[in-house]
Amino acid sequence: MKRRLLLFWALLLASSPARAEVRDWVEANRAAILSEYVRLLSIPNVASDTPNIRRNADRLVQMLRARGLNPRLLEGDGPTVPPAVYGEWLVPGAGRTLVLYAHYDGQPVAPEEWRASKPFEPTLRSARFDRGGEVLPLPRPGEPIDPEWRLYGRAAADDKAGVMAILSAVDGLRAEGRSPSFNVKIFFEGEEEAGSPHLAGILSRNKALLASDGWVIFDSPAHPSGAKQVVLGVRGITGADITVYGPKRPLHSGHYGNWAPNPAMSLSRLLASMKDAAGRVAIAGFYDDVTPLSAAERQAVQAVPAADAQLKAELGLAGGEGGGKRLVELIQEPSLNIDGLRSADVGERARNVIPTTATATVDMRLVMGNDHQRQYEKLIAHIRSQGFHVTEAEPSEEERRRHPLLARVVKRGGYNAERTPMDLPISRAVLRAVQSTTANPVYAVPTLGGSLPLSLISEALPGTRTITLPIVNHDNNQHAEDENLRLGNLWEAIAVVGSIMTMPQPPPATPRQAAPARSIGRGSVQRSAQEVTPGSAR
Amino acid sequence: MKRRLLLFWALLLASSPARAEVRDWVEANRAAILSEYVRLLSIPNVASDTPNIRRNADRLVQMLRARGLNPRLLEGDGPTVPPAVYGEWLVPGAGRTLVLYAHYDGQPVAPEEWRASKPFEPTLRSARFDRGGEVLPLPRPGEPIDPEWRLYGRAAADDKAGVMAILSAVDGLRAEGRSPSFNVKIFFEGEEEAGSPHLAGILSRNKALLASDGWVIFDSPAHPSGAKQVVLGVRGITGADITVYGPKRPLHSGHYGNWAPNPAMSLSRLLASMKDAAGRVAIAGFYDDVTPLSAAERQAVQAVPAADAQLKAELGLAGGEGGGKRLVELIQEPSLNIDGLRSADVGERARNVIPTTATATVDMRLVMGNDHQRQYEKLIAHIRSQGFHVTEAEPSEEERRRHPLLARVVKRGGYNAERTPMDLPISRAVLRAVQSTTANPVYAVPTLGGSLPLSLISEALPGTRTITLPIVNHDNNQHAEDENLRLGNLWEAIAVVGSIMTMPQPPPATPRQAAPARSIGRGSVQRSAQEVTPGSAR
Repeated sequence: MKRRLLLFWALLLASSPARAEVRDWVEANRAAILSEYVRLLSIPNVASDTPNIRRNADRLVQMLRARGLNPRLLEGDGPTVPPAVYGEWLVPGAGRTLVLYAHYDGQPVAPEEWRASKPFEPTLRSARFDRGGEVLPLPRPGEPIDPEWRLYGRAAADDKAGVMAILSAVDGLRAEGRSPSFNVKIFFEGEEEAGSPHLAGILSRNKALLASDGWVIFDSPAHPSGAKQVVLGVRGITGADITVYGPKRPLHSGHYGNWAPNPAMSLSRLLASMKDAAGRVAIAGFYDDVTPLSAAERQAVQAVPAADAQLKAELGLAGGEGGGKRLVELIQEPSLNIDGLRSADVGERARNVIPTTATATVDMRLVMGNDHQRQYEKLIAHIRSQGFHVTEAEPSEEERRRHPLLARVVKRGGYNAERTPMDLPISRAVLRAVQSTTANPVYAVPTLGGSLPLSLISEALPGTRTITLPIVNHDNNQHAEDENLRLGNLWEAIAVVGSIMTMPQPPPATPRQAAPARSIGRGSVQRSAQEVTPGSAR
Repeated sequence: MKRRLLLFWALLLASSPARAEVRDWVEANRAAILSEYVRLLSIPNVASDTPNIRRNADRLVQMLRARGLNPRLLEGDGPTVPPAVYGEWLVPGAGRTLVLYAHYDGQPVAPEEWRASKPFEPTLRSARFDRGGEVLPLPRPGEPIDPEWRLYGRAAADDKAGVMAILSAVDGLRAEGRSPSFNVKIFFEGEEEAGSPHLAGILSRNKALLASDGWVIFDSPAHPSGAKQVVLGVRGITGADITVYGPKRPLHSGHYGNWAPNPAMSLSRLLASMKDAAGRVAIAGFYDDVTPLSAAERQAVQAVPAADAQLKAELGLAGGEGGGKRLVELIQEPSLNIDGLRSADVGERARNVIPTTATATVDMRLVMGNDHQRQYEKLIAHIRSQGFHVTEAEPSEEERRRHPLLARVVKRGGYNAERTPMDLPISRAVLRAVQSTTANPVYAVPTLGGSLPLSLISEALPGTRTITLPIVNHDNNQHAEDENLRLGNLWEAIAVVGSIMTMPQPPPATPRQAAPARSIGRGSVQRSAQEVTPGSAR
């Protein structure tokens, strides 16, 4: 099976690059696409919001059924688990199968912080809101649509854009009377932003249904220059909610200040101890375990044009972390980031108190070689090294009596990094398909800075390779307020999905030579089958 | 005038300690007092909430009018300034005048954090909520009322309790057909918790109306043992909102983490730099300027029984700041406290982002010798010393381009500490009046840990002495959620107000000897007039 797979992709790579494009169809149907997309974005989609997540899943089933894609829900192990939504376009005679992935859930929202739209009332604007974009009515069929317009709303970019691109590409092919070159299976996840805690279970229970020759993931932003990228890997992720304890009841800061310990101060000290002045993580062993990049991967990193100066100007940043390394280099390393702080209140709502608790949420990004549990334990060891007694639950009376410094730490899920070698035939085939949609260079990147649960896919469905195609504008505010999609990116994304679905179908594969399942190649398929670089092993 | 005043208090001190008590009246009218109090607490009273502050002021005018106290509003210099509410009980032939002060505004509320009641839906409970106190109906006249019951609601303790104690003591005296020994003027402030920004103006515009021989302030908690205290001074206060800046838009922490600077980390570092491990403030010069206590004051501090062990047990604290000094000693020093932290969000609402800003609110308590502007400037100098460019407004594009570390710092008002010498006749007379209400020792304390705008009173009405009588339970959660009043403290507070209003009226004062206005005495009035201890000067 593995041998055949390798050969299949090698042959595909050698075949004609003739591309079917769905651009004409997109051009003629943009108003309709937008209208359907706005309806989808109007359904709140935070993974913990069970009734609305169900409404999303039901809508997706309708949308798949309308396209004849034989939909079904793949349920988790309880009614509050967001189901995955499955669909398929099986092609008679096709020996190969590709799974197209996107996720329909979005990050939590703080509605009071949204200015360009309400999170679930999608709003079209003539440009970026912070650059004066005005509200526009939804265009009617035939009206001109500027690719620079922005659609605001939670998940407009991350990642209902992936969902909509896949479904629209299906429409485009159907309208032209064409079929994919392979069996296409569609998998829409419903809890990616919650850390995919039930994905492995859903995959394991549906191994036969999801059998494939590879997954293509439609998610994440393009290069800041707008250039298209093919991303071979993703960082893993874990994180923690760290709560530091002060007095059991909030105290008047005058009557007790500088006598009672202040948890906001203890937390500040703890967080400050986690990084040095240059922004390097100071947790013992944090950078151990990292699997170095291969020579080809290092070369690829070097080839990606630096966008650092452009980004710093855009973001109003004079400084940065990482000691002068470029962004594309820094995302090859594990990281630690403070997502937020909360203790009592500030500004107009501040009261003169010693707060009872102070909480920070941190996330840690992992690269190949890291294990999320091991990395989390390094964090715990660090907190202990700063004098804290660490608990998982609310500290007891006894713990309060015994320990001057108390921290409750709760792990925020976790999964490992994943990376598909750059020189595998599937990697080169996908790169070629994406390249066929543009005259500009397409960059191959060993890893995305962000995280997707791709290691869960390769663990639950052993041997499955994943490749990620970033499709949305880089300045989309994903994970934050005022998330938005540049319309031109949606039109291009549909074209990219079309190019992937119609990669030419090669002749049936002939077994030739045994090859290890997860090897890395350099230069040719044969060599890749033989030279197993330790650096690329999981 | 000053000479006469001194003599007046000296004579008062020498007169009979026979006390009029309003306890019997309180005993018979507790249900009615409680009912009127609940109505008052039901009106939201955050100083910035202009319509409701006006409703409070109007209600107080009604309550004063019902008692024949000739009320009027003393307006600030604009319609959004909370007015002070004035009343008076002038006694024919009384040569002396005392002003009784309380404030009717309360600290801001975070309603979602209240559990024992809603902030402005006062709720009676059979004990402390966190010790299982159950909700009780308001008692009807004649029903038994346990002094341990708690009334929950914003300002139940701080400081509508002072307002209610003054008004109820008036009722008690009236019911017994008695009058105060002096002219009594009543001054209810409406923006104490907002830092009294307009108090000086209101006082200055009403100098004649407010002419008096001294102010007695009803506010603040009793000693943790329940012992009554006479407090000669208060700490001053200032503070700041400190906002540290990161990227102009929130960034995905995977795509940009450990490249873009994280403002929550920069803020944590800055805050951690402000105190050493023992909790001493590390800001240069922070403890300079402090006027040492006089020998008598040091002695008084030593005489206050230590409640530290009791408090630590109650509050679940194993450690503390201040290097082992007792609470009563530590409040004689200036302090710095973090009131709250905010950056993006944590826990369930956390998103994996690099936040755009991180904000801390800090308050600084001041003692005699400190100037609030000078102390604030030490804070600013410290922030600069940590590498920050400090602005007062949102940083401009140009400032963002030039400075890797940016902090916007906004001062939160400020006024200085105030202290009345312990051995002045007024000090001793008040101590004696309070002592008359209890067989237990009453402690004289040089300063309260908390702040009251008493320096503004002595500046606007030169030479005015102020003495503070703490009345509420120490575990009242003032300034925080679940603020509450122990009912027994209200009944005692009414008795204390009664004892102050009926301190015996001395014969008219005869001028004898010149004395400096703000001297301190040791042992006798004569000596106090001559020995000016530098330690007591402002």
